[in-house]
Amino acid sequence: MIRLNPHYAKLQSSYLFVEIGRRVAEHSASNPRRPLIKLGIGDVTRPLTPAIVRAFHEGVDEQADAATFRGYGPEQGYPFLRSAIAESDFAARGCRIDADDIFVSDGAKCDTGNFQELFAEDVRVAVPDPVYPVYVDTNVMAGRTGAATGGRYENLVYIEGTEDNSFVPGPENLEDRNADLVYLCFPNNPTGTTATKEQLGRWVDWARSRGALILFDAAYEAFITDPELPRSIYEVPGAETCAVEFRSFSKTAGFTGTRCAYTVVPSSVEIDGTRLRDLWNRRHSTKFNGVSYPVQKAAAAVYGPEGRAETMESIRYYLENARIIREAMTQVGFAVWGGVNSPYVWVKTGEDSWSTFDRLLVKADVVVTPGSGFGRMGEGFIRISAFNDRDRVSEAVDRITEALG
Amino acid sequence: MIRLNPHYAKLQSSYLFVEIGRRVAEHSASNPRRPLIKLGIGDVTRPLTPAIVRAFHEGVDEQADAATFRGYGPEQGYPFLRSAIAESDFAARGCRIDADDIFVSDGAKCDTGNFQELFAEDVRVAVPDPVYPVYVDTNVMAGRTGAATGGRYENLVYIEGTEDNSFVPGPENLEDRNADLVYLCFPNNPTGTTATKEQLGRWVDWARSRGALILFDAAYEAFITDPELPRSIYEVPGAETCAVEFRSFSKTAGFTGTRCAYTVVPSSVEIDGTRLRDLWNRRHSTKFNGVSYPVQKAAAAVYGPEGRAETMESIRYYLENARIIREAMTQVGFAVWGGVNSPYVWVKTGEDSWSTFDRLLVKADVVVTPGSGFGRMGEGFIRISAFNDRDRVSEAVDRITEALG
Repeated sequence: MIRLNPHYAKLQSSYLFVEIGRRVAEHSASNPRRPLIKLGIGDVTRPLTPAIVRAFHEGVDEQADAATFRGYGPEQGYPFLRSAIAESDFAARGCRIDADDIFVSDGAKCDTGNFQELFAEDVRVAVPDPVYPVYVDTNVMAGRTGAATGGRYENLVYIEGTEDNSFVPGPENLEDRNADLVYLCFPNNPTGTTATKEQLGRWVDWARSRGALILFDAAYEAFITDPELPRSIYEVPGAETCAVEFRSFSKTAGFTGTRCAYTVVPSSVEIDGTRLRDLWNRRHSTKFNGVSYPVQKAAAAVYGPEGRAETMESIRYYLENARIIREAMTQVGFAVWGGVNSPYVWVKTGEDSWSTFDRLLVKADVVVTPGSGFGRMGEGFIRISAFNDRDRVSEAVDRITEALG
Repeated sequence: MIRLNPHYAKLQSSYLFVEIGRRVAEHSASNPRRPLIKLGIGDVTRPLTPAIVRAFHEGVDEQADAATFRGYGPEQGYPFLRSAIAESDFAARGCRIDADDIFVSDGAKCDTGNFQELFAEDVRVAVPDPVYPVYVDTNVMAGRTGAATGGRYENLVYIEGTEDNSFVPGPENLEDRNADLVYLCFPNNPTGTTATKEQLGRWVDWARSRGALILFDAAYEAFITDPELPRSIYEVPGAETCAVEFRSFSKTAGFTGTRCAYTVVPSSVEIDGTRLRDLWNRRHSTKFNGVSYPVQKAAAAVYGPEGRAETMESIRYYLENARIIREAMTQVGFAVWGGVNSPYVWVKTGEDSWSTFDRLLVKADVVVTPGSGFGRMGEGFIRISAFNDRDRVSEAVDRITEALG
């Protein structure tokens, strides 16, 4: 008799964005006087840029001609894309990452979700709180946790982000120093905070001294404009022996609906005498068949001179939105984090997250994300996303100011 | 200290296609007198057809315009594609499969590899021999097997395909009736055999009586032209309560480099009072972010009148290749299976598989796949793929006849 994976039953049933969707649908059915403005889910709104679209069409045309048609490609991605990534995202910033260390995939959600498969079932996993839920849920599914009580899973180690540490927790904030695998994300989702080289360096030192591994989610690195801030954990010496990095074209180049990302597993990360890269390669080539060729062509265009300029323009556009949101919330009198070098603004509203959510939905017809949905430490906060059109962001900010001011 | 998943170490180190690549490279370096013809890996060679290309370009153009741009789509796939699938692939053949039971993905390799995550670690898994290696390797990685000896893993239940059962084994060929999860694939990879409704019916009866689940890989169903043969397991009454089906656009419509597939989990499959569909939905939406929108547009074009006609033409083209290969091998005097309603021809050459492989490589400059790479029962056989251009297939057949005849 077939039996289910018992660990799925531990997953918290009410999923954040489902509950948001339910409340939004209920509100919409009550005929609000104005169109809703959604600053909740972090999804881009600007179209693919001309250089990317051109390359995408070229890739499709190649698939239309027997002379240039490509069937199965390398599971790890085409060399033209892996080389462009190694050169532009790493060598240009002084990081020694080889093209062979880069694994192209269809999304950082898949990669951050799948990577834990490489480790023993009983490794101790540490996750930030507040946190991107995928890190948690995929470890629950894999059986690394006990049951959840009060929104926290038994056996998970929590790293609390608080006002005291400005939502950039360090190893000293680890609940339990015996963690083996640590998820970090900077620029952070949901708080929008960034980490300095010194702050990342303390994590790298900790990991090296412990023999722990860092899974570093850099999906929002493109929003870093401050030249002093690291965009990759490999800008910190030693990280190439204890960290895996996840990147995505989703927010960088508007690929949320186009799908391309990559994971960096340096050949110098060794565990028990095994190169972690070889293990990921085995996993990747057994359970994945490569990213769509025209999509890889489109992604490579991000690294050309036009693609780069156009992409930067979109990033600046969203960053200006973030600035507008941040300033307005500050003027209302709220404490804010993020919104600089990041597309997310984290706002302390002085009441529980869902109350603020409901108030903004009903009085401002604006959708944000309740901070408590990201973990216990998010209670009392909301996340506002800068991904939307400028006029909608300005209008939303006016409405929020009126509703909460 | 971080520790690795110990089960990866059990994986057989010499991977079939890696070994083939090594021997082919060695041969190529020795300056053969003619270009190699590859009938090994099952990869399409015909370009995407005009209707599909048109839709693909339209999808890209929509991503280029703010008014039509799409960011994150539903993880399960867009309704336009799920409905087209439900209507054309199932309702039209009398199967009651709802659009909500269909999960669009980027490949059947991913889906057949990932699906086992939904089950308890100690369920008994049965796999055919010969077999598509992904079913085996993903269960090894998940810890459901012991070590391998003589090419077989401890705790896996093997279902032997033999000349006696014409490589269509039934439940009576199960080594151990206590299997809980059974992988089946028809038209079969690698043997090219097909199963009748009666033959599938016996598997369905067995699964229902045991409370077992069938994972049915129908990636090659488009090659079935015999109207009496089932193209879906859901043509067998009762399968909707005990079977999951995997389909792919890879071989059907030349999508090996474009990437789109889908999995069917009927809402009527219940295990321990839980709908399996809901569990897969949870897994799919936690670890996957949907297929590229332009790719979904392209896939939907397969179901339009032009796409259907063009796709059928490609299928007929490959089937004619298969017929040519099958007839030639029969004339040489070999026993053959497959090559009818299937793109693969399975040939008994009367010597060990690698010897035939080497002989064909050296004497005919033709690459095939040694049957022993698919399991112990494949020893003595080779698989010849019909996926290539007609003139190459004809040339290859002449060379093989000369070399082996």
